[in-house]
Amino acid sequence: MRTRFVLIQTSHAGNVGGVARAMKVMGFDDLVLVQPRWANVLRREETIQRASGANDVLAKARIVDTLDEALDGMSHLCATAMTPRDFGPPTRAPREHFAAVLGEQEPPEGVAFLFGSERFGMRNEDVYRCHVALSIPTAPGFGSLNLAAAVQLVAYDWRQALGGFEAPAEAQPRATADARALAGMLDHLEQALVAVDFLDPGAPKKLMPRLNQLFNRAAPSDEEVHILRGVAKAMLLTADKAKR
Amino acid sequence: MRTRFVLIQTSHAGNVGGVARAMKVMGFDDLVLVQPRWANVLRREETIQRASGANDVLAKARIVDTLDEALDGMSHLCATAMTPRDFGPPTRAPREHFAAVLGEQEPPEGVAFLFGSERFGMRNEDVYRCHVALSIPTAPGFGSLNLAAAVQLVAYDWRQALGGFEAPAEAQPRATADARALAGMLDHLEQALVAVDFLDPGAPKKLMPRLNQLFNRAAPSDEEVHILRGVAKAMLLTADKAKR
Repeated sequence: MRTRFVLIQTSHAGNVGGVARAMKVMGFDDLVLVQPRWANVLRREETIQRASGANDVLAKARIVDTLDEALDGMSHLCATAMTPRDFGPPTRAPREHFAAVLGEQEPPEGVAFLFGSERFGMRNEDVYRCHVALSIPTAPGFGSLNLAAAVQLVAYDWRQALGGFEAPAEAQPRATADARALAGMLDHLEQALVAVDFLDPGAPKKLMPRLNQLFNRAAPSDEEVHILRGVAKAMLLTADKAKR
Repeated sequence: MRTRFVLIQTSHAGNVGGVARAMKVMGFDDLVLVQPRWANVLRREETIQRASGANDVLAKARIVDTLDEALDGMSHLCATAMTPRDFGPPTRAPREHFAAVLGEQEPPEGVAFLFGSERFGMRNEDVYRCHVALSIPTAPGFGSLNLAAAVQLVAYDWRQALGGFEAPAEAQPRATADARALAGMLDHLEQALVAVDFLDPGAPKKLMPRLNQLFNRAAPSDEEVHILRGVAKAMLLTADKAKR
Protein backbone atom coordinates (compact mmCIF):
# COMPACT_ATOMS: atom_id res chain seq x y z
CA MET A 1 0.00 0.00 0.00
CA ARG A 2 1.33 3.43 -0.94
CA THR A 3 1.03 6.37 1.45
CA ARG A 4 1.32 10.01 0.43
CA PHE A 5 1.13 13.25 2.38
CA VAL A 6 -0.21 16.23 0.46
CA LEU A 7 0.19 19.78 1.79
CA ILE A 8 -2.08 22.33 0.14
CA GLN A 9 -1.01 25.99 0.08
CA THR A 10 1.30 25.73 3.05
CA SER A 11 2.61 29.12 4.22
CA HIS A 12 5.43 28.39 6.65
CA ALA A 13 8.65 26.87 5.40
CA GLY A 14 9.44 25.63 8.90
CA ASN A 15 6.27 23.57 8.86
CA VAL A 16 7.30 21.87 5.61
CA GLY A 17 10.56 20.84 7.27
CA GLY A 18 8.70 19.69 10.37
CA VAL A 19 6.35 17.64 8.21
CA ALA A 20 9.26 15.95 6.41
CA ARG A 21 10.77 15.00 9.76
CA ALA A 22 7.44 13.81 11.17
CA MET A 23 6.91 11.60 8.09
CA LYS A 24 10.39 10.14 8.06
CA VAL A 25 10.34 9.26 11.75
CA MET A 26 7.28 7.12 10.98
CA GLY A 27 8.83 5.62 7.85
CA PHE A 28 7.00 7.60 5.13
CA ASP A 29 8.69 9.53 2.33
CA ASP A 30 6.13 10.54 -0.31
CA LEU A 31 5.43 14.27 0.08
CA VAL A 32 3.66 16.50 -2.45
CA LEU A 33 3.13 20.25 -2.05
CA VAL A 34 0.28 21.94 -3.90
CA GLN A 35 0.93 25.66 -4.45
CA PRO A 36 3.13 26.29 -1.44
CA ARG A 37 3.64 29.97 -0.61
CA TRP A 38 7.36 29.76 -1.42
CA ALA A 39 8.38 28.23 -4.75
CA ASN A 40 11.80 27.41 -3.28
CA VAL A 41 10.35 26.08 -0.02
CA LEU A 42 12.21 22.77 -0.29
CA ARG A 43 15.55 24.58 -0.25
CA ARG A 44 14.87 27.30 2.32
CA GLU A 45 17.04 27.43 5.40
CA GLU A 46 14.10 27.18 7.83
CA THR A 47 12.79 24.12 6.02
CA ILE A 48 16.10 22.30 6.16
CA GLN A 49 16.64 23.25 9.78
CA ARG A 50 13.26 21.93 10.94
CA ALA A 51 13.64 18.81 8.75
CA SER A 52 16.61 17.95 10.95
CA GLY A 53 18.04 15.22 8.75
CA ALA A 54 14.95 14.24 6.76
CA ASN A 55 16.66 15.65 3.67
CA ASP A 56 15.82 12.63 1.53
CA VAL A 57 12.12 13.31 2.02
CA LEU A 58 12.64 16.92 0.92
CA ALA A 59 14.76 15.80 -2.05
CA LYS A 60 12.03 13.42 -3.23
CA ALA A 61 9.17 15.90 -2.63
CA ARG A 62 7.25 17.29 -5.60
CA ILE A 63 5.68 20.71 -6.03
CA VAL A 64 2.56 20.85 -8.23
CA ASP A 65 -0.02 23.42 -9.27
CA THR A 66 -3.25 21.51 -8.71
CA LEU A 67 -4.56 18.94 -6.28
CA ASP A 68 -5.29 16.65 -9.24
CA GLU A 69 -1.61 16.43 -10.09
CA ALA A 70 -0.88 15.46 -6.50
CA LEU A 71 -3.22 12.49 -6.48
CA ASP A 72 -1.99 10.12 -9.21
CA GLY A 73 -2.13 6.52 -8.03
CA MET A 74 -4.11 7.42 -4.90
CA SER A 75 -7.47 5.71 -4.48
CA HIS A 76 -8.42 6.63 -0.91
CA LEU A 77 -8.36 10.31 0.03
CA CYS A 78 -8.38 11.43 3.63
CA ALA A 79 -9.10 15.08 4.30
CA THR A 80 -7.97 16.51 7.60
CA ALA A 81 -10.50 19.05 8.68
CA MET A 82 -11.42 20.31 12.10
CA THR A 83 -14.86 21.41 10.97
CA PRO A 84 -17.26 18.89 9.45
CA ARG A 85 -18.72 20.10 6.15
CA ASP A 86 -22.35 19.75 5.13
CA PHE A 87 -22.49 17.32 2.21
CA GLY A 88 -18.89 16.37 2.88
CA PRO A 89 -17.53 12.89 3.60
CA PRO A 90 -18.13 11.29 7.00
CA THR A 91 -15.99 12.59 9.88
CA ARG A 92 -13.97 9.93 11.70
CA ALA A 93 -11.22 9.79 14.31
CA PRO A 94 -8.00 8.50 12.69
CA ARG A 95 -7.61 5.31 14.74
CA GLU A 96 -11.17 4.24 14.19
CA HIS A 97 -11.04 4.95 10.45
CA PHE A 98 -7.67 3.29 9.89
CA ALA A 99 -8.83 0.08 11.55
CA ALA A 100 -11.92 0.10 9.32
CA VAL A 101 -10.01 0.77 6.09
CA LEU A 102 -7.41 -1.91 6.75
CA GLY A 103 -10.14 -4.33 7.75
CA GLU A 104 -11.85 -4.04 4.37
CA GLN A 105 -11.76 -7.00 2.03
CA GLU A 106 -9.91 -4.95 -0.55
CA PRO A 107 -7.93 -2.22 1.19
CA PRO A 108 -7.03 0.71 -1.10
CA GLU A 109 -3.70 0.62 -2.93
CA GLY A 110 -2.87 4.26 -2.43
CA VAL A 111 -3.85 6.36 0.57
CA ALA A 112 -3.37 10.13 0.52
CA PHE A 113 -3.59 12.42 3.55
CA LEU A 114 -4.49 15.99 2.62
CA PHE A 115 -3.64 18.97 4.82
CA GLY A 116 -4.88 22.49 4.13
CA SER A 117 -3.14 25.79 4.75
CA GLU A 118 -2.19 26.86 8.28
CA ARG A 119 -4.65 29.75 8.32
CA PHE A 120 -7.65 28.50 6.40
CA GLY A 121 -7.51 24.72 6.45
CA MET A 122 -8.93 22.88 3.45
CA ARG A 123 -11.24 24.37 0.87
CA ASN A 124 -14.74 22.87 0.76
CA GLU A 125 -14.31 21.65 -2.83
CA ASP A 126 -11.15 19.76 -1.82
CA VAL A 127 -12.90 18.17 1.16
CA TYR A 128 -15.86 17.10 -1.00
CA ARG A 129 -13.79 14.77 -3.14
CA CYS A 130 -12.34 12.91 -0.16
CA HIS A 131 -13.58 9.58 1.21
CA VAL A 132 -13.32 10.66 4.81
CA ALA A 133 -12.60 13.73 6.91
CA LEU A 134 -10.17 12.74 9.63
CA SER A 135 -10.61 14.68 12.82
CA ILE A 136 -8.04 14.28 15.57
CA PRO A 137 -9.89 14.32 18.90
CA THR A 138 -8.67 17.44 20.71
CA ALA A 139 -9.61 19.40 23.82
CA PRO A 140 -12.97 21.13 23.54
CA GLY A 141 -12.19 24.82 23.02
CA PHE A 142 -8.62 24.38 21.82
CA GLY A 143 -8.32 22.30 18.68
CA SER A 144 -5.43 24.31 17.30
CA LEU A 145 -2.94 21.67 16.19
CA ASN A 146 0.25 22.81 14.51
CA LEU A 147 0.48 21.48 10.92
CA ALA A 148 3.58 19.38 11.57
CA ALA A 149 2.01 18.10 14.82
CA ALA A 150 -1.13 17.03 12.94
CA VAL A 151 0.99 15.22 10.34
CA GLN A 152 2.94 13.60 13.18
CA LEU A 153 -0.20 12.24 14.83
CA VAL A 154 -1.75 10.98 11.58
CA ALA A 155 1.55 9.39 10.48
CA TYR A 156 1.89 7.72 13.88
CA ASP A 157 -1.64 6.31 13.95
CA TRP A 158 -1.36 5.14 10.33
CA ARG A 159 2.00 3.47 10.97
CA GLN A 160 0.62 1.79 14.07
CA ALA A 161 -2.43 0.62 12.12
CA LEU A 162 -0.10 -0.80 9.43
CA GLY A 163 1.56 -2.92 12.08
CA GLY A 164 3.98 -0.44 13.61
CA PHE A 165 7.66 -0.60 14.29
CA GLU A 166 9.29 -2.53 17.05
CA ALA A 167 10.05 -0.58 20.19
CA PRO A 168 13.77 -0.89 20.97
CA ALA A 169 14.54 -4.11 22.78
CA GLU A 170 15.23 -4.05 26.48
CA ALA A 171 18.87 -3.51 27.33
CA GLN A 172 18.45 -6.43 29.74
CA PRO A 173 15.26 -8.42 29.60
CA ARG A 174 14.11 -9.14 33.14
CA ALA A 175 12.60 -12.39 34.36
CA THR A 176 10.87 -12.36 37.73
CA ALA A 177 12.34 -14.75 40.30
CA ASP A 178 10.01 -17.54 41.33
CA ALA A 179 8.21 -17.76 44.68
CA ARG A 180 10.70 -20.26 46.08
CA ALA A 181 13.68 -18.00 45.35
CA LEU A 182 11.82 -15.08 46.92
CA ALA A 183 10.96 -17.12 50.05
CA GLY A 184 14.61 -18.18 50.39
CA MET A 185 15.71 -14.56 50.19
CA LEU A 186 13.11 -13.50 52.77
CA ASP A 187 14.35 -16.21 55.21
CA HIS A 188 17.88 -15.00 54.72
CA LEU A 189 16.78 -11.39 55.23
CA GLU A 190 14.82 -12.31 58.36
CA GLN A 191 17.94 -13.84 59.95
CA ALA A 192 19.86 -10.69 59.08
CA LEU A 193 17.20 -8.39 60.51
CA VAL A 194 17.26 -10.38 63.72
CA ALA A 195 21.07 -10.23 63.79
CA VAL A 196 21.13 -6.43 63.51
CA ASP A 197 18.50 -6.20 66.27
CA PHE A 198 15.83 -4.72 64.08
CA LEU A 199 13.50 -7.68 64.30
CA ASP A 200 12.61 -9.14 67.68
CA PRO A 201 11.78 -12.85 67.10
CA GLY A 202 9.66 -12.76 70.26
CA ALA A 203 7.51 -9.89 68.94
CA PRO A 204 7.87 -9.90 65.16
CA LYS A 205 4.78 -7.71 64.56
CA LYS A 206 4.01 -8.38 60.95
CA LEU A 207 7.35 -7.21 59.67
CA MET A 208 8.05 -10.23 57.46
CA PRO A 209 4.56 -10.37 55.88
CA ARG A 210 4.89 -6.66 55.13
CA LEU A 211 8.28 -7.13 53.49
CA ASN A 212 6.91 -10.11 51.61
CA GLN A 213 4.14 -7.94 50.17
CA LEU A 214 6.60 -5.19 49.29
CA PHE A 215 8.83 -7.66 47.43
CA ASN A 216 5.84 -9.25 45.73
CA ARG A 217 4.96 -5.87 44.28
CA ALA A 218 8.58 -5.25 43.29
CA ALA A 219 8.72 -8.68 41.61
CA PRO A 220 12.54 -8.91 41.76
CA SER A 221 14.56 -10.82 39.18
CA ASP A 222 16.91 -13.67 40.05
CA GLU A 223 19.79 -11.25 39.87
CA GLU A 224 18.07 -8.83 42.24
CA VAL A 225 17.29 -11.68 44.67
CA HIS A 226 20.99 -12.49 44.52
CA ILE A 227 21.87 -8.88 45.37
CA LEU A 228 19.42 -8.87 48.28
CA ARG A 229 20.88 -12.11 49.64
CA GLY A 230 24.30 -10.49 49.40
CA VAL A 231 23.00 -7.65 51.55
CA ALA A 232 21.60 -10.13 54.10
CA LYS A 233 24.90 -11.99 54.19
CA ALA A 234 26.85 -8.78 54.77
CA MET A 235 24.47 -7.82 57.59
CA LEU A 236 25.00 -11.22 59.23
CA LEU A 237 28.80 -11.00 58.94
CA THR A 238 28.83 -7.49 60.37
CA ALA A 239 26.60 -8.56 63.24
CA ASP A 240 28.96 -11.47 63.90
CA LYS A 241 31.93 -9.11 64.09
CA ALA A 242 30.03 -6.77 66.37
CA LYS A 243 29.48 -9.59 68.87
CA ARG A 244 33.17 -10.45 69.14
CA MET B 1 -5.32 11.56 38.23
CA ARG B 2 -2.88 14.44 37.73
CA THR B 3 -0.68 14.66 34.66
CA ARG B 4 2.49 16.74 34.42
CA PHE B 5 4.97 17.33 31.63
CA VAL B 6 8.54 18.02 32.75
CA LEU B 7 11.14 19.42 30.34
CA ILE B 8 14.73 19.05 31.50
CA GLN B 9 17.36 21.51 30.21
CA THR B 10 15.46 22.45 27.09
CA SER B 11 17.50 24.63 24.70
CA HIS B 12 15.06 25.97 22.14
CA ALA B 13 12.44 28.48 23.18
CA GLY B 14 10.35 27.56 20.15
CA ASN B 15 10.12 24.00 21.42
CA VAL B 16 8.78 25.19 24.79
CA GLY B 17 6.02 27.03 22.95
CA GLY B 18 5.35 24.01 20.76
CA VAL B 19 5.13 21.80 23.86
CA ALA B 20 2.62 24.15 25.52
CA ARG B 21 0.44 24.01 22.40
CA ALA B 22 0.78 20.23 22.09
CA MET B 23 -0.28 19.81 25.73
CA LYS B 24 -3.22 22.19 25.57
CA VAL B 25 -4.63 20.63 22.42
CA MET B 26 -4.84 17.36 24.37
CA GLY B 27 -6.29 19.03 27.47
CA PHE B 28 -3.19 19.14 29.72
CA ASP B 29 -1.83 22.26 31.42
CA ASP B 30 0.75 21.30 34.04
CA LEU B 31 4.21 22.14 32.64
CA VAL B 32 7.46 22.34 34.64
CA LEU B 33 10.84 23.32 33.22
CA VAL B 34 14.02 22.17 34.94
CA GLN B 35 16.98 24.44 34.18
CA PRO B 36 15.88 25.65 30.77
CA ARG B 37 18.62 27.35 28.74
CA TRP B 38 16.80 30.70 28.86
CA ALA B 39 15.64 31.95 32.25
CA ASN B 40 13.00 34.08 30.50
CA VAL B 41 11.95 31.28 28.16
CA LEU B 42 8.26 31.59 29.10
CA ARG B 43 8.19 35.19 27.86
CA ARG B 44 10.38 34.94 24.75
CA GLU B 45 8.86 35.89 21.44
CA GLU B 46 9.63 32.53 19.80
CA THR B 47 7.97 30.69 22.68
CA ILE B 48 4.79 32.72 22.49
CA GLN B 49 4.66 32.45 18.71
CA ARG B 50 4.93 28.66 18.69
CA ALA B 51 2.52 28.37 21.63
CA SER B 52 -0.08 29.86 19.28
CA GLY B 53 -2.69 30.60 21.90
CA ALA B 54 -1.65 28.20 24.65
CA ASN B 55 -0.71 31.21 26.77
CA ASP B 56 -2.49 29.90 29.86
CA VAL B 57 -0.20 26.85 29.89
CA LEU B 58 2.84 29.15 29.70
CA ALA B 59 1.41 31.41 32.40
CA LYS B 60 0.92 28.45 34.76
CA ALA B 61 4.30 26.86 33.98
CA ARG B 62 6.98 26.71 36.67
CA ILE B 63 10.75 26.93 36.29
CA VAL B 64 12.79 25.00 38.89
CA ASP B 65 16.43 24.17 39.53
CA THR B 66 16.25 20.45 40.19
CA LEU B 67 14.23 17.51 38.98
CA ASP B 68 13.18 16.84 42.58
CA GLU B 69 11.39 20.16 42.76
CA ALA B 70 9.53 19.27 39.58
CA LEU B 71 8.11 16.03 40.91
CA ASP B 72 6.00 16.94 43.97
CA GLY B 73 2.78 14.95 44.01
CA MET B 74 3.90 12.67 41.18
CA SER B 75 4.00 8.94 41.96
CA HIS B 76 4.57 7.42 38.53
CA LEU B 77 7.51 8.71 36.50
CA CYS B 78 7.79 8.05 32.79
CA ALA B 79 11.14 8.74 31.17
CA THR B 80 11.19 9.28 27.45
CA ALA B 81 14.39 7.81 26.13
CA MET B 82 15.26 6.50 22.71
CA THR B 83 18.07 4.34 24.07
CA PRO B 84 17.35 1.71 26.72
CA ARG B 85 19.74 1.97 29.69
CA ASP B 86 21.38 -0.97 31.40
CA PHE B 87 19.92 -1.20 34.92
CA GLY B 88 17.25 1.30 33.91
CA PRO B 89 13.50 0.81 34.07
CA PRO B 90 11.77 -1.41 31.50
CA THR B 91 11.29 0.07 28.03
CA ARG B 92 7.70 0.14 26.77
CA ALA B 93 5.77 1.63 23.88
CA PRO B 94 3.42 4.34 25.20
CA ARG B 95 0.11 2.72 24.19
CA GLU B 96 1.00 -0.60 25.71
CA HIS B 97 2.26 0.97 28.94
CA PHE B 98 -0.69 3.33 29.35
CA ALA B 99 -3.17 0.48 29.02
CA ALA B 100 -1.24 -1.47 31.66
CA VAL B 101 -0.98 1.46 34.11
CA LEU B 102 -4.65 2.36 33.83
CA GLY B 103 -5.59 -1.31 34.18
CA GLU B 104 -3.88 -1.59 37.57
CA GLN B 105 -6.02 -2.02 40.65
CA GLU B 106 -4.65 1.22 42.07
CA PRO B 107 -3.62 3.50 39.24
CA PRO B 108 -1.12 6.19 40.29
CA GLU B 109 -2.46 9.57 41.41
CA GLY B 110 0.16 11.66 39.66
CA VAL B 111 1.86 10.74 36.38
CA ALA B 112 4.84 12.75 35.17
CA PHE B 113 6.33 12.58 31.69
CA LEU B 114 10.01 13.58 31.60
CA PHE B 115 11.72 14.87 28.47
CA GLY B 116 15.48 15.48 28.24
CA SER B 117 17.34 18.14 26.31
CA GLU B 118 17.14 18.30 22.52
CA ARG B 119 20.78 17.39 22.04
CA PHE B 120 21.54 14.90 24.78
CA GLY B 121 18.22 13.44 25.87
CA MET B 122 17.89 12.37 29.51
CA ARG B 123 20.78 11.81 31.88
CA ASN B 124 21.21 8.23 33.10
CA GLU B 125 20.61 9.19 36.74
CA ASP B 126 17.30 10.81 35.81
CA VAL B 127 16.21 7.73 33.85
CA TYR B 128 17.13 5.40 36.74
CA ARG B 129 14.54 6.88 39.07
CA CYS B 130 11.70 6.43 36.60
CA HIS B 131 9.19 3.57 36.59
CA VAL B 132 9.31 3.11 32.84
CA ALA B 133 11.19 4.37 29.81
CA LEU B 134 8.65 5.19 27.14
CA SER B 135 9.94 4.64 23.64
CA ILE B 136 7.83 5.82 20.72
CA PRO B 137 8.13 3.22 17.94
CA THR B 138 9.87 5.00 15.06
CA ALA B 139 11.43 4.04 11.75
CA PRO B 140 14.59 1.98 12.10
CA GLY B 141 17.47 4.33 11.31
CA PHE B 142 15.58 7.59 11.90
CA GLY B 143 14.24 7.94 15.41
CA SER B 144 14.83 11.68 15.53
CA LEU B 145 11.57 13.07 16.91
CA ASN B 146 11.31 16.79 17.52
CA LEU B 147 10.73 17.54 21.22
CA ALA B 148 7.31 19.12 20.70
CA ALA B 149 6.37 16.24 18.37
CA ALA B 150 7.33 13.70 21.03
CA VAL B 151 5.24 15.55 23.61
CA GLN B 152 2.38 15.67 21.10
CA LEU B 153 2.43 11.90 20.59
CA VAL B 154 2.71 11.06 24.29
CA ALA B 155 -0.03 13.57 25.19
CA TYR B 156 -2.27 12.11 22.47
CA ASP B 157 -1.78 8.49 23.51
CA TRP B 158 -2.23 9.37 27.18
CA ARG B 159 -5.40 11.35 26.48
CA GLN B 160 -6.75 8.50 24.37
CA ALA B 161 -5.91 6.02 27.13
CA LEU B 162 -7.74 8.26 29.64
CA GLY B 163 -10.87 7.99 27.52
CA GLY B 164 -10.21 10.60 24.87
CA PHE B 165 -12.24 13.48 23.58
CA GLU B 166 -15.19 13.21 21.30
CA ALA B 167 -14.47 13.72 17.64
CA PRO B 168 -16.70 16.50 16.30
CA ALA B 169 -20.14 15.25 15.43
CA GLU B 170 -21.12 14.75 11.83
CA ALA B 171 -22.55 17.81 10.18
CA GLN B 172 -25.29 15.53 8.87
CA PRO B 173 -25.47 11.99 10.17
CA ARG B 174 -26.18 9.69 7.26
CA ALA B 175 -28.52 6.69 7.33
CA THR B 176 -28.25 4.19 4.50
CA ALA B 177 -31.44 3.71 2.46
CA ASP B 178 -32.95 0.26 2.75
CA ALA B 179 -32.86 -2.39 0.01
CA ARG B 180 -36.42 -1.69 -1.08
CA ALA B 181 -35.72 2.02 -1.62
CA LEU B 182 -32.58 1.13 -3.55
CA ALA B 183 -34.45 -1.38 -5.75
CA GLY B 184 -37.15 1.23 -6.49
CA MET B 185 -34.50 3.71 -7.55
CA LEU B 186 -32.80 1.12 -9.76
CA ASP B 187 -36.12 0.35 -11.52
CA HIS B 188 -36.62 4.03 -12.12
CA LEU B 189 -33.07 4.39 -13.39
CA GLU B 190 -33.47 1.39 -15.67
CA GLN B 191 -36.49 2.96 -17.37
CA ALA B 192 -34.52 6.17 -17.81
CA LEU B 193 -31.53 4.36 -19.29
CA VAL B 194 -33.82 2.64 -21.77
CA ALA B 195 -35.47 5.98 -22.62
CA VAL B 196 -32.14 7.64 -23.43
CA ASP B 197 -31.18 4.63 -25.59
CA PHE B 198 -28.28 3.60 -23.40
CA LEU B 199 -29.81 0.31 -22.30
CA ASP B 200 -31.24 -2.07 -24.92
CA PRO B 201 -33.96 -4.11 -23.18
CA GLY B 202 -33.43 -6.85 -25.75
CA ALA B 203 -29.73 -7.15 -24.88
CA PRO B 204 -29.30 -5.72 -21.40
CA LYS B 205 -25.87 -7.36 -20.89
CA LYS B 206 -25.34 -7.11 -17.16
CA LEU B 207 -25.76 -3.37 -16.88
CA MET B 208 -28.34 -3.34 -14.09
CA PRO B 209 -26.60 -5.93 -11.88
CA ARG B 210 -23.40 -3.92 -12.27
CA LEU B 211 -25.11 -0.69 -11.29
CA ASN B 212 -26.77 -2.52 -8.41
CA GLN B 213 -23.33 -3.58 -7.12
CA LEU B 214 -21.97 -0.08 -7.55
CA PHE B 215 -24.84 1.42 -5.54
CA ASN B 216 -24.55 -1.31 -2.92
CA ARG B 217 -20.95 -0.25 -2.31
CA ALA B 218 -21.93 3.41 -2.27
CA ALA B 219 -24.69 2.67 0.26
CA PRO B 220 -26.71 5.80 -0.58
CA SER B 221 -28.89 7.55 1.96
CA ASP B 222 -32.61 8.14 1.49
CA GLU B 223 -31.82 11.67 0.43
CA GLU B 224 -29.31 10.45 -2.14
CA VAL B 225 -31.82 7.90 -3.47
CA HIS B 226 -34.24 10.79 -3.83
CA ILE B 227 -31.65 12.76 -5.83
CA LEU B 228 -30.99 9.77 -8.09
CA ARG B 229 -34.71 9.29 -8.73
CA GLY B 230 -34.85 12.98 -9.63
CA VAL B 231 -32.13 12.36 -12.20
CA ALA B 232 -34.05 9.38 -13.63
CA LYS B 233 -37.22 11.45 -13.85
CA ALA B 234 -35.41 14.25 -15.67
CA MET B 235 -33.95 11.75 -18.12
CA LEU B 236 -37.43 10.32 -18.83
CA LEU B 237 -38.94 13.79 -19.35
CA THR B 238 -36.14 14.81 -21.70
CA ALA B 239 -36.50 11.57 -23.68
CA ASP B 240 -40.23 12.26 -23.96
CA LYS B 241 -39.58 15.71 -25.39
CA ALA B 242 -37.03 14.32 -27.80
CA LYS B 243 -39.62 11.97 -29.27
CA ARG B 244 -42.08 14.71 -30.06
